[in-house]
Amino acid sequence: MNRPIAVLGGTGPEGYGLALRLAQAGEAIIIGSRDAKRAQDAAAKIKEKIGPAAQVSGAENSAACSAADLLVLTIPFEGHATLLKQLKPAIRPGSIVIDTTVPLAASVGGRASRTLGVWQGSAAQQTAELVPKGVTVVAALQNASAELLNADGPVDCDVLVCSDDPSAIQTVRTLAAKIPGVRAIDGGKLENARILEQITALLIGLNIRHKAHTGIRFTGLPPAAYEIK
Amino acid sequence: MNRPIAVLGGTGPEGYGLALRLAQAGEAIIIGSRDAKRAQDAAAKIKEKIGPAAQVSGAENSAACSAADLLVLTIPFEGHATLLKQLKPAIRPGSIVIDTTVPLAASVGGRASRTLGVWQGSAAQQTAELVPKGVTVVAALQNASAELLNADGPVDCDVLVCSDDPSAIQTVRTLAAKIPGVRAIDGGKLENARILEQITALLIGLNIRHKAHTGIRFTGLPPAAYEIK
Repeated sequence: MNRPIAVLGGTGPEGYGLALRLAQAGEAIIIGSRDAKRAQDAAAKIKEKIGPAAQVSGAENSAACSAADLLVLTIPFEGHATLLKQLKPAIRPGSIVIDTTVPLAASVGGRASRTLGVWQGSAAQQTAELVPKGVTVVAALQNASAELLNADGPVDCDVLVCSDDPSAIQTVRTLAAKIPGVRAIDGGKLENARILEQITALLIGLNIRHKAHTGIRFTGLPPAAYEIK
Repeated sequence: MNRPIAVLGGTGPEGYGLALRLAQAGEAIIIGSRDAKRAQDAAAKIKEKIGPAAQVSGAENSAACSAADLLVLTIPFEGHATLLKQLKPAIRPGSIVIDTTVPLAASVGGRASRTLGVWQGSAAQQTAELVPKGVTVVAALQNASAELLNADGPVDCDVLVCSDDPSAIQTVRTLAAKIPGVRAIDGGKLENARILEQITALLIGLNIRHKAHTGIRFTGLPPAAYEIK
């Protein structure tokens, strides 16, 4: 039995797509939602799609959180800080929080092709300030679009994984690389999340302008940069 | 005879690489430098490399500027505003200024994998404030690395072209697409330059971390997004 991964906000398109892909890869997933029933329905839908062997369940966000030590945040930025404050007592010491959040200006009625300035530098760095001590934050997967995650076929996108903890980077690289098509690359310190988050806004702008579902690839990297040991 | 293109700061690695590639594509290039002699030497070196038919000359930056109406800025950020103020009387009305500048923190002794905050949002938007009225600024080519431009073979990199003037975007897309390997894509308004500039810092970080010369590609775009009409 794998240690379970809680996908918080996992009934939204990004979280659902990630839960689906990771369950397909054989990971044990707990979908978290404000509403336990909605989370259970989403879990049932994934089981229906990929078969009864899938290890997927649903729970209210705090319950999901306290049952896992690998957490994926897939909630809109406007609910981000509030949820983290609420989850704080439920987050286990030693957990890894993978933050996929992008502070889109759409959170405050602006455009999804622009970002808000976050005092700490990025949504992920804000998360690092809000989690209990001893919990590691990793920024990743912001640029793997919900459309591509929910479609069939490989996700044509590289994932940069950023954290101040090198071993957490390796854990999350190993996980992200289980999504077909994804190359998971060490992206350096958590502070680089500010650039990853803005790339999402850029991709959304390209999607609107060119009627597309875009992703990003990095050229010129040696194979060692995306091999998983 | 093509209208000449002035590459200001064209004796530095980025400018020299761009001048080389554009001259190879048959464009008429004036390399600009603070020092006319250095500019002429760089021009002679390009002629030596690609043959006597190459249309390349060298001049002091202001002289280069007043002889062209397509200008490429390839100077380090620390000299950016000063040069633009100096060039202002020499820039012809109706010119297009292609800004490749990235406000790297290295400009003030910091890291090349971090950027400075620019009040206007980006170096290119600062440029838009400093050029005479009636001159159009286009942000492009920040992510086409000097190493790849100066190497042989195609440049494995997409170029987003951003401006508030759609016809200038088309002009610069047509130009950038002459560099082998480059797909030149409409990147929207000039305000998006802030993201393109930060991507350069991200690529520099990847280059250091993975001992590579990286570039970016966008996946999922329809061919119409990078076809040149």
